[in-house]
Amino acid sequence: MAGVDGSERAATGWAARDADGHLSPYTYTLRKTGPEDVVVKVMYCGICHTDIHQTKNHFGFSKYPMVPGHEVVGEVEEVGPDVSKYTVGDVVGVGGIVGCCRSCRPCKANDEQYCSKKIWTYNDVYTDGRPTQGGFSSAMVVDQKFVVKIPAGLAPEQAAPLLCAGVTAYSPLKHFGLMSPGLRGGVLGLGGIGHLGVKLAKAMGHHVTVISSSDKKRAEAMDELGADAYVVSSDEGQMAAAVDSLDYIIDTVPVEHPLEPYLAMLRLNGKLVLMGVIPAPLSFVSPLVMMGRKTITGSFIGSMQEMEEVLDFFADKGLASQIEVVKMDYLNQALDRLDRNDVRYRFVVDVAGSNIEDDAA
Amino acid sequence: MAGVDGSERAATGWAARDADGHLSPYTYTLRKTGPEDVVVKVMYCGICHTDIHQTKNHFGFSKYPMVPGHEVVGEVEEVGPDVSKYTVGDVVGVGGIVGCCRSCRPCKANDEQYCSKKIWTYNDVYTDGRPTQGGFSSAMVVDQKFVVKIPAGLAPEQAAPLLCAGVTAYSPLKHFGLMSPGLRGGVLGLGGIGHLGVKLAKAMGHHVTVISSSDKKRAEAMDELGADAYVVSSDEGQMAAAVDSLDYIIDTVPVEHPLEPYLAMLRLNGKLVLMGVIPAPLSFVSPLVMMGRKTITGSFIGSMQEMEEVLDFFADKGLASQIEVVKMDYLNQALDRLDRNDVRYRFVVDVAGSNIEDDAA
Repeated sequence: MAGVDGSERAATGWAARDADGHLSPYTYTLRKTGPEDVVVKVMYCGICHTDIHQTKNHFGFSKYPMVPGHEVVGEVEEVGPDVSKYTVGDVVGVGGIVGCCRSCRPCKANDEQYCSKKIWTYNDVYTDGRPTQGGFSSAMVVDQKFVVKIPAGLAPEQAAPLLCAGVTAYSPLKHFGLMSPGLRGGVLGLGGIGHLGVKLAKAMGHHVTVISSSDKKRAEAMDELGADAYVVSSDEGQMAAAVDSLDYIIDTVPVEHPLEPYLAMLRLNGKLVLMGVIPAPLSFVSPLVMMGRKTITGSFIGSMQEMEEVLDFFADKGLASQIEVVKMDYLNQALDRLDRNDVRYRFVVDVAGSNIEDDAA
Repeated sequence: MAGVDGSERAATGWAARDADGHLSPYTYTLRKTGPEDVVVKVMYCGICHTDIHQTKNHFGFSKYPMVPGHEVVGEVEEVGPDVSKYTVGDVVGVGGIVGCCRSCRPCKANDEQYCSKKIWTYNDVYTDGRPTQGGFSSAMVVDQKFVVKIPAGLAPEQAAPLLCAGVTAYSPLKHFGLMSPGLRGGVLGLGGIGHLGVKLAKAMGHHVTVISSSDKKRAEAMDELGADAYVVSSDEGQMAAAVDSLDYIIDTVPVEHPLEPYLAMLRLNGKLVLMGVIPAPLSFVSPLVMMGRKTITGSFIGSMQEMEEVLDFFADKGLASQIEVVKMDYLNQALDRLDRNDVRYRFVVDVAGSNIEDDAA
């Protein structure tokens, strides 16, 4: 990595070259450090299921070469002259977006994740016309608005999953007024988001029920994650016993599924919060919603402010993500395993410890 | 009408005898006035679309003879010894329910309309084992908890539609924090609930868009009800121009319809509030909800407290329902016309002015 005196600097990442999705070393240049830019030397980057969708072009708008990764933790290596929030040496994080219009209603309400002109951390085009590239790379240049400080006391590899999965679970609990102790919550699906949902909700003082399609994850949900109850969704008796019992359900299932069984589990004013981008239509009958003033809603990552909040919450409560730390040369295998749900519960790549510039040489 | 000294009293109503739904005079006895009971001499009773469903057994649980009517305004004729809220001569109202368990979570939160053991005003069984009978009758005996005071300054026939249609439109605006001036609201469907929704929302200082399947009601929506905009749902250009513009939509459509066009009209955090009991499934795709943190919800009538509030709101703002007042002997024709949507916008029956006891003689 080079880059000094206002010149562009080289970065080495692992990129997909086509919809096959296989990643391999790729060297490219980062933009000059602008007045409000922060240069981040990447330490760790979490692997999100979206990385698979994007590298394999499941959404149909992938551009290659593509360096994925949007749960990025690194050290500030340089700052532009107008950067006020960070100094060299700070440990910082970058999540799913690196730009927004700053003038629309969502932007003005600090809900920049809902800006229709937001710029994705990778597989997008930055304001200078260049492709954005993500965190499986030696370095990134990011506007300070889209950088958060990692609190002291939170290990950088622990922080990584919070920057997408963690804030995705946290944001709706915050926004919909679901942080009070004593609430009864459900978490449907126990993956990257789900396991952090359980940890966050427990730390908020909720009674947490994990809802899963089989009994396989019961022990880990109850014993390792600390859930209070476990319901198998295919077991009619268990589902019937849980009717009218929950204030909310965080629904992380990313494929088509019936909503009625989960709406029935909600009590008056209960909220079903969808997290999965599911192209197939979901359906429900209106009386099930009306007769308990229930809400079907959804939420998408979180705001920069909520990213700071979830990091602070984790640090304050002494929480830990359950992660499997791997090196860059395991990245393709890790993506394959994630695609098979074979991870408890998040891969985090030790980018700085992987000598990726040597690999690329 | 008789009834004194703790005896049962006779009442004359108009009852359906079978699923044909035709109403005709019917004499029955009212329960003795209990300690907390109020005897109401009926003055006016509004006609709600539910009356058609119930008298014609569309829901499959109708019992006959059935006296419908749940938008009841009358004068207090007698009170039980423990009645503190009302005295003889008060003008009062009765809505859709006349009992609840008083111990469940909804009841304790004063959301008795969501009590699973609520007692419907008619076509239900009271705590004494007798059938409940509604407001198309000379009199009713109702527990004081389910009676509201009609404010001075609000004509009794004007108050009637507020007791179901009015509070149905008001309750979600109150509950979901949608009463602030400056909001942009939509009303989908211009019937009994919809027309009151427009009036309430305008009086709250909202910019109100009426969304209708044709251009037919444009003039009345804009000129008579005071809507700010009118969008024809089948006009792609008009719908596209309204995308991302509304904070909420009150959806009164009682039949299956697509939700996507209306979800698209909502802006960030916008709420689609379903009012129609629609047995067919409604569907949507999750990204349309997630990417704007939009809410699909529903609401059912309103609480007793909200009934008082909407009456006071109407009186304070000097609002008026648009009603067609008819006599009891027009009841069957009125039901037929309502079934054909041939009313602007609510029938109210002048029960006291109809000499129904003479008809029954």
